[in-house]
Amino acid sequence: MIILGLDPGLGTTGWGLIRAEGNRLSHLANGKLKTDTKAPLPRRLAHLDAMLAALIADHAPQAAAVEEVFVNSNAQSTLKLGQARGVVLCAAARTGIDVGEYKPSTVKKSVVGVGNAEKEQVHAMVSRLLPGVKIDGPDAADALAVAICHAHHLASARLGLR
Amino acid sequence: MIILGLDPGLGTTGWGLIRAEGNRLSHLANGKLKTDTKAPLPRRLAHLDAMLAALIADHAPQAAAVEEVFVNSNAQSTLKLGQARGVVLCAAARTGIDVGEYKPSTVKKSVVGVGNAEKEQVHAMVSRLLPGVKIDGPDAADALAVAICHAHHLASARLGLR
Repeated sequence: MIILGLDPGLGTTGWGLIRAEGNRLSHLANGKLKTDTKAPLPRRLAHLDAMLAALIADHAPQAAAVEEVFVNSNAQSTLKLGQARGVVLCAAARTGIDVGEYKPSTVKKSVVGVGNAEKEQVHAMVSRLLPGVKIDGPDAADALAVAICHAHHLASARLGLR
Repeated sequence: MIILGLDPGLGTTGWGLIRAEGNRLSHLANGKLKTDTKAPLPRRLAHLDAMLAALIADHAPQAAAVEEVFVNSNAQSTLKLGQARGVVLCAAARTGIDVGEYKPSTVKKSVVGVGNAEKEQVHAMVSRLLPGVKIDGPDAADALAVAICHAHHLASARLGLR
């Protein structure tokens, strides 16, 4: 099964594709999608949508996963992130695949073993779990982490553990 | 020129289509798009996207307009609205049309003449500016108001007034 992890953002959306065969994980590809900060918002969102549609068409993932958002006190940032996140969730769901959402602590617990792990620990474990991976920056690392989390959850579900 | 006004919301998105010929406005259609509150978020966003795509394909508007968001202190509501708004802006921009964004006070000023008008005044003026219109609830009324605002702005721009 091919799983697409996504880390939404208006300026940069990280993505990571992994293959899960039983408990065996392998890396397929990762990267980031950037939009032009000088373009109007609707145009940026449509560009993000087009890049996601192309990515999904190219790799045909069977599932997608996104972190739940930790909303902060800056309402403008929350709105901006929300708009990008809406486009990302929609682009994946539109193709008919299921989109899992996981709390940040659940992703950390799944990848590192503890829910309060540091970012660096998460990224180090992503590299270890996907031998040979070259990670295209922190957003792609976060995207790979949530893809791994989804793979673990699907594996547990198959074993009847949840 | 056919203008599509949109009032985004996850549960209900209002829409209104008007025709603008010089200073003459006429009503074409209005309504609301609802998503299933029991469905998962990605599914609801994809459903909203599909309904918008069908609406735009049916009516082929040449422009779209959306109100800017007045962000409030409830971060969860802002995130929810942001996600729906991202999908709405993207669905319009994806078809290649320009999407205007207007502050709530600009819409009120354009429709009623004052920036601090009450909702009821705005809705009453929408009915007066679009004779014969039957408005499908407050979200559709807001959508028609922002479409009217966009028509006024385009007319002023053509006359070199902005």
